[in-house]
Amino acid sequence: MDDEAGSLPAKNDFSAWYNDILWRAEVMDVRYPVKGLYVWYPHGFALRRAVYQLLRDLLDTDHQETLFPLLIPKTEFMKEKEHIKGFEEEVYWVTHGGLTELDIPLALRPTSETAIYPMYSLWIRSHADLPLKLYQIVNTFRYETKHTRPLIRLREITSFKEAHTVHATWDEAEAQVRTAVSLYTTFYRRLCVPVIISRRPDWDKFPGADYTIATDTVMPDGRTLQIGTVHHLGDHFSRTFSITYEDANGEQQYAYQTCYGISERSIAAVISVHGDDRGLVLPSDLAPVQVVIVPIIVGKRGDEVLAHAAACEAELQAAGLRVRTDARNLRPGAKYYHWEMRGVPLRIEIGPRDIDAGTVMAVTRLGEKQGIARNGLSGTVRELLDAFSETLRQRAEERMKASIHAVSSIDGAKEAVATGVAVVPWCGEEACAGELERLTDASVLGTDVRSPHVAEREAPCIICGKTGRPALLGRSY
Amino acid sequence: MDDEAGSLPAKNDFSAWYNDILWRAEVMDVRYPVKGLYVWYPHGFALRRAVYQLLRDLLDTDHQETLFPLLIPKTEFMKEKEHIKGFEEEVYWVTHGGLTELDIPLALRPTSETAIYPMYSLWIRSHADLPLKLYQIVNTFRYETKHTRPLIRLREITSFKEAHTVHATWDEAEAQVRTAVSLYTTFYRRLCVPVIISRRPDWDKFPGADYTIATDTVMPDGRTLQIGTVHHLGDHFSRTFSITYEDANGEQQYAYQTCYGISERSIAAVISVHGDDRGLVLPSDLAPVQVVIVPIIVGKRGDEVLAHAAACEAELQAAGLRVRTDARNLRPGAKYYHWEMRGVPLRIEIGPRDIDAGTVMAVTRLGEKQGIARNGLSGTVRELLDAFSETLRQRAEERMKASIHAVSSIDGAKEAVATGVAVVPWCGEEACAGELERLTDASVLGTDVRSPHVAEREAPCIICGKTGRPALLGRSY
Repeated sequence: MDDEAGSLPAKNDFSAWYNDILWRAEVMDVRYPVKGLYVWYPHGFALRRAVYQLLRDLLDTDHQETLFPLLIPKTEFMKEKEHIKGFEEEVYWVTHGGLTELDIPLALRPTSETAIYPMYSLWIRSHADLPLKLYQIVNTFRYETKHTRPLIRLREITSFKEAHTVHATWDEAEAQVRTAVSLYTTFYRRLCVPVIISRRPDWDKFPGADYTIATDTVMPDGRTLQIGTVHHLGDHFSRTFSITYEDANGEQQYAYQTCYGISERSIAAVISVHGDDRGLVLPSDLAPVQVVIVPIIVGKRGDEVLAHAAACEAELQAAGLRVRTDARNLRPGAKYYHWEMRGVPLRIEIGPRDIDAGTVMAVTRLGEKQGIARNGLSGTVRELLDAFSETLRQRAEERMKASIHAVSSIDGAKEAVATGVAVVPWCGEEACAGELERLTDASVLGTDVRSPHVAEREAPCIICGKTGRPALLGRSY
Repeated sequence: MDDEAGSLPAKNDFSAWYNDILWRAEVMDVRYPVKGLYVWYPHGFALRRAVYQLLRDLLDTDHQETLFPLLIPKTEFMKEKEHIKGFEEEVYWVTHGGLTELDIPLALRPTSETAIYPMYSLWIRSHADLPLKLYQIVNTFRYETKHTRPLIRLREITSFKEAHTVHATWDEAEAQVRTAVSLYTTFYRRLCVPVIISRRPDWDKFPGADYTIATDTVMPDGRTLQIGTVHHLGDHFSRTFSITYEDANGEQQYAYQTCYGISERSIAAVISVHGDDRGLVLPSDLAPVQVVIVPIIVGKRGDEVLAHAAACEAELQAAGLRVRTDARNLRPGAKYYHWEMRGVPLRIEIGPRDIDAGTVMAVTRLGEKQGIARNGLSGTVRELLDAFSETLRQRAEERMKASIHAVSSIDGAKEAVATGVAVVPWCGEEACAGELERLTDASVLGTDVRSPHVAEREAPCIICGKTGRPALLGRSY
């Protein structure tokens, strides 16, 4: 990519900013010749690796990774009626192998329930096999007819993490839902992305689920982005796919299931929540390059500066940090621009005067600048990186807080959803929700809202005046 | 899986053994309801993770990881004539999105040249952009009409590592071919899998390549398995996809390319080369469980033994080893059977007498048994694990050597290919190769054979008597 080709639109114009930053920061190339399919640049892929490694580390304490086929025979796919209804308009179908028409068309998985559960039916025999907790990270497909957008609304979701668990009782499955929500909260905390947890209204739950708990974040334009869902599947799928176990009394019982997923929207959230007018801003744990060293070569001491930079790089690398020295023949400003665009958390500048003083200049991606001692460099850098992530986390949480407004009137709700989300008292009746959505041109996202910025208290429904509880109202991606 | 359900066929009956071991050792489940598609069990997937992490580590020193879409529009796919000829009978086509017929059918990538190279055409502008060395690890698809076999001949290859490089000159691309061959040799050395490198005959090269270098191993039934290929693409694809660069003189030049791949056949090779009548035998670096500790509980000292086992486990884990204690209420023999089937390189048995003597009993997967001191356990275990892998490597290399026979007659060749591969002098004429293949019911696999067990020397062609050079003849999977 050419750093000189124009400049990044201001983040105020979020849609333009988002589309542009993806290629300028070398995250994704949008020029692949099929709508809704995109190419990961190496820099973007390195970010993906870090994000998904974190997710794996969190899951591996309590789940096992596995891998099921992409292709699902139509016969299996059609088994769960509600489920197929939810997907029939957006499934890609493989109909031909070579020049031959297939006997049974094969669906590209939009999600893997119907690929996995026939196998679970074979694997699970007795209560001793439960709980079963597996996950996979796979590409999934949706024939999106709406406007597509890289990482957010795709035809190939390249990085769908889906976990599928099986339990002996409904309550044990519910406990797993709580565990999963907690795991996702931890995950997004590590990404420094603030989230609101809520229970989706019944009409918006996963097709075939008892209920759905969703994780949303608020994007810079005030719209919400769903970045994680956890579904209690009850025994719907176990009855369809005959997933039964022999209980302690020798009786056959239907199992209870959950599933929960996170996609590359997690990366869209990281980019959108933290980025600024100069490019990506990446939390230290996730940045493909955590530290860039820029040697400041003035006068005759160039070799000395380069040697010094190399020694710093070696020390930071030995400490396990991802560090790069930019010794290109460019003016320092061009290098700053290049690495700021790519979100590097910390820049270290080393010039002759720093060498004489036994210091280096450290500049965070947010522009905080300080001289630090050359001695003990890697320890200090690690502290700066940790502090940087903490700053991002707090900054994002404050913005989240500012984007949530508890309201008690329709006008207040309309105003709130123009820049964020509204918390409105709602009685729980679908008719009232419909009226609320119509009046505000927004959606009821959920109830049982869990956020440090939302108080759970009763109040008269904003539509009918009956007793209501806080519901989240917003415009979603 | 139920350890008690019959027993593993002897490895002499390789085909039966192979099919059986995959589920008994929980590598893959073959019961997925579509021919040629299989499910990775968690244990198999953990092996896959280790193998592909090794491959990533080797590639990352000199390549960058990336990710391109699965779906290739028919218009791009049809561009390179030789290439499409090689694949047209085995490509899966997506023709419908939801209930809508697509304007342009989409191919499921059988390999990604036609997905990647249109982007390379956009990315490469000048000689400063070269060389470009990217790779991805993806699922690819072939509509196989032949007999399918897990990990070997699949309809969904779940783990195809494909690297694609671009160079300024044909010679630089050739140098990259050598680098790739060397990288693959290192990879298979780490897998303790011996390989023969050769240059495929022209009629068997990759569709659209100048030439193909292949990596084969010999399976226990004497048939060869192609487990890696490196292709010099010349400028065939760069001319088709307009991949040009501006050279130092400001002239536009076509680039030269290579590509090279390794699939989950690498895992089939590990399983087949090392396994025995009792199950998997895994090299130490790759084993999901490297050490299993079996507490021998006799008499009254059960708690003491368990505490001792836990302390050993903690010490080995702290040393970075993957260790499991099997404290199930089963007789030791059943535990041995269970973990031997899964290929664990080292078993440690701890009983009351070991505690008294300050030792533990260490038993390798090949049955070598020795008491070792409890003091310094993790160091000793690491040495035993390294020695174990070295033993596997040597054992496999000896078998490879025994399976290669230099012959000078058709009868000799027929005898050799019944149990392995023949090295035959061949003049290089396709007609002679055809006759040789007809007479021996085997295939000419390659020339320019690189193996410590094959000498490169001239001799009369086994068919026509003209000057010939060693060619590899065998029956391949």
